[in-house]
Amino acid sequence: MMWKNNFTKLLGIEFPLIQAPMAGGVTTPELVAAVSNAGGLGMLGAGYLSSPQLRMQIKEIKARTDKNFGVNLFVPSSYKQNPEKLNETKQLLSQLIAELDVEQPPFHLPTYEEELQIFIEQVDILIEENIPICSFTFGIPPKDLGTKLKDHSSILIGTATTVNEAILNEEAGMDAVVMQGMEAGGHRGTFLIEDQNSLIGLMSLIPQAADHIAIPIIAAGGIMDGRGFVAARCLGASAVQMGTAFLVCEESGANLQHKEAILHANEDQVVLTKAFSGKLARGVKNQFIEKIQHYEANLPDYPLQNELTKAIRKAAVQCGNTEFMSLWSGQSPRLAQVRTVQELFDTLCKEVQQFKF
Amino acid sequence: MMWKNNFTKLLGIEFPLIQAPMAGGVTTPELVAAVSNAGGLGMLGAGYLSSPQLRMQIKEIKARTDKNFGVNLFVPSSYKQNPEKLNETKQLLSQLIAELDVEQPPFHLPTYEEELQIFIEQVDILIEENIPICSFTFGIPPKDLGTKLKDHSSILIGTATTVNEAILNEEAGMDAVVMQGMEAGGHRGTFLIEDQNSLIGLMSLIPQAADHIAIPIIAAGGIMDGRGFVAARCLGASAVQMGTAFLVCEESGANLQHKEAILHANEDQVVLTKAFSGKLARGVKNQFIEKIQHYEANLPDYPLQNELTKAIRKAAVQCGNTEFMSLWSGQSPRLAQVRTVQELFDTLCKEVQQFKF
Repeated sequence: MMWKNNFTKLLGIEFPLIQAPMAGGVTTPELVAAVSNAGGLGMLGAGYLSSPQLRMQIKEIKARTDKNFGVNLFVPSSYKQNPEKLNETKQLLSQLIAELDVEQPPFHLPTYEEELQIFIEQVDILIEENIPICSFTFGIPPKDLGTKLKDHSSILIGTATTVNEAILNEEAGMDAVVMQGMEAGGHRGTFLIEDQNSLIGLMSLIPQAADHIAIPIIAAGGIMDGRGFVAARCLGASAVQMGTAFLVCEESGANLQHKEAILHANEDQVVLTKAFSGKLARGVKNQFIEKIQHYEANLPDYPLQNELTKAIRKAAVQCGNTEFMSLWSGQSPRLAQVRTVQELFDTLCKEVQQFKF
Repeated sequence: MMWKNNFTKLLGIEFPLIQAPMAGGVTTPELVAAVSNAGGLGMLGAGYLSSPQLRMQIKEIKARTDKNFGVNLFVPSSYKQNPEKLNETKQLLSQLIAELDVEQPPFHLPTYEEELQIFIEQVDILIEENIPICSFTFGIPPKDLGTKLKDHSSILIGTATTVNEAILNEEAGMDAVVMQGMEAGGHRGTFLIEDQNSLIGLMSLIPQAADHIAIPIIAAGGIMDGRGFVAARCLGASAVQMGTAFLVCEESGANLQHKEAILHANEDQVVLTKAFSGKLARGVKNQFIEKIQHYEANLPDYPLQNELTKAIRKAAVQCGNTEFMSLWSGQSPRLAQVRTVQELFDTLCKEVQQFKF
């Protein structure tokens, strides 16, 4: 029951295990290829990549594997300018920026139209490169672009955090949907309601979604080992997507301090914060989160706050200061293990076999 | 694998399924006895019962079943008086109280010492009545009282919402521990950290707890059917505790409007609120929750706020006004079904058998 199913056949993979398309340099070509070579589905998180970067990384993955892999894109959405909150928060951060000896670059954000143009270019690259599987976060892609990809026989995977979001994904023609539980690390793909109202635990989310949609469900959030894998399948998921478990793998591009922070964290130290980006995201608590905590209601929305903290995060990574970088992690840091991707798959296979399905 | 195990043997029951000890009149003797008669473990929620009420309800349960059942007690804890917040909130509620034509009774709360005295009396009643299983919420009972119960061969069950709380329960000599996920309805048993930091999804909570304690784990929160039951067992739980699934059963004492509200709710309409009690609890969103939402940080803590809203809640129940009563529910309201307890057990057995363990 646990391994091959119609969905693995559709994706052209051996095990129904997908590596989450974590953006920001985590999903190196080494990581993506290693997952696909091990029999799972490697996913490139292309959210913040320029077109040349995207094309190059796809070529690097292809050089490392002839197995299927996928690419994840962020669906652009319009945002409100908010000069007042922006200036207030700039002032709030200015002292910190001085302390950290960071140069704050001039504030620049692409408009929605520019973002959409980049998205269209990305879709074209996926078509040119014959990427068999495309997944989407932060919304449903415009109908014409979805159709274009489907005409080139791409399999489309949406992202949802509530049953209503899952239904919309199915209605839009997605072939499958990632159901992200509140356990998930980093930003989640909520697009229909406020972040705060979409915090549903996987134990509740999967069976309720399974009763309302017919497309395959991929369970995501807090799953790190054979126990979670089998549990998710029992709840109604056809496959499982793991983020943090792959982030701490040797092939991942996450920096060492980030990996270390996860390996030393407890589940109650992994918190939800808007401090880094203006959008709720889950990571290991640090000084930056604590400093901003009481100011969260006054931060400008994503992507404004994300742009404001860019220089701080970059400087923190460069000097290895974990107190000011985003240490994204799901709610199961105690289950994290440093190992190769192949070791992760070997262990998982053994664990799953113990359930004797 | 799914049914009999060492833990069911210890509890003297047939199925590792426990009915959550919901306080406030939900766990009628009919409900508790029906669950035990069906082969599970019925639990009386005695948190708000006086000694005579507790004794009478135990006798009523005994008249209905000769199977094992349990009783849950609230562990008393000291609280801070806060006259300023109390008066502010009184004023906030006064308009509402006038609109609803409610008589606000004089404010009275038992002191910690009085609460402890009641708790000691309750423990004595459990011993006199030879209650075989006692569970605790909101903390760990004082050592001498735990020992007293154990000397009378009671099995003790603690409640935890984080791994550290689970470890403390084990160290205190509890025979098992209910691990409550953030999916759970009503108040949860958090006692070590702030409510907001203890919101761990079951998918993450169970395996991490299972790696750190040796006593049996009872999974609780959002589980309503065979899928959740089997998933929880796979994650490492020896048994499952269900609240909302039993609350909507015919034998439950929850009022009809409360049951109806759950049956019509979606998972994203079941929210966390401090409005009713000053302590975070999960229920179906209504006008009262929305009115108080932006004022939550200024409410006095539990049990002060609980006392302040008592008259409003009581009046709302009496006139069937769902906008001002607490409509506690877990995160899986879409899975709720009106049926008898026996029908719930029959359905669950069929569902679990499909997994072919």
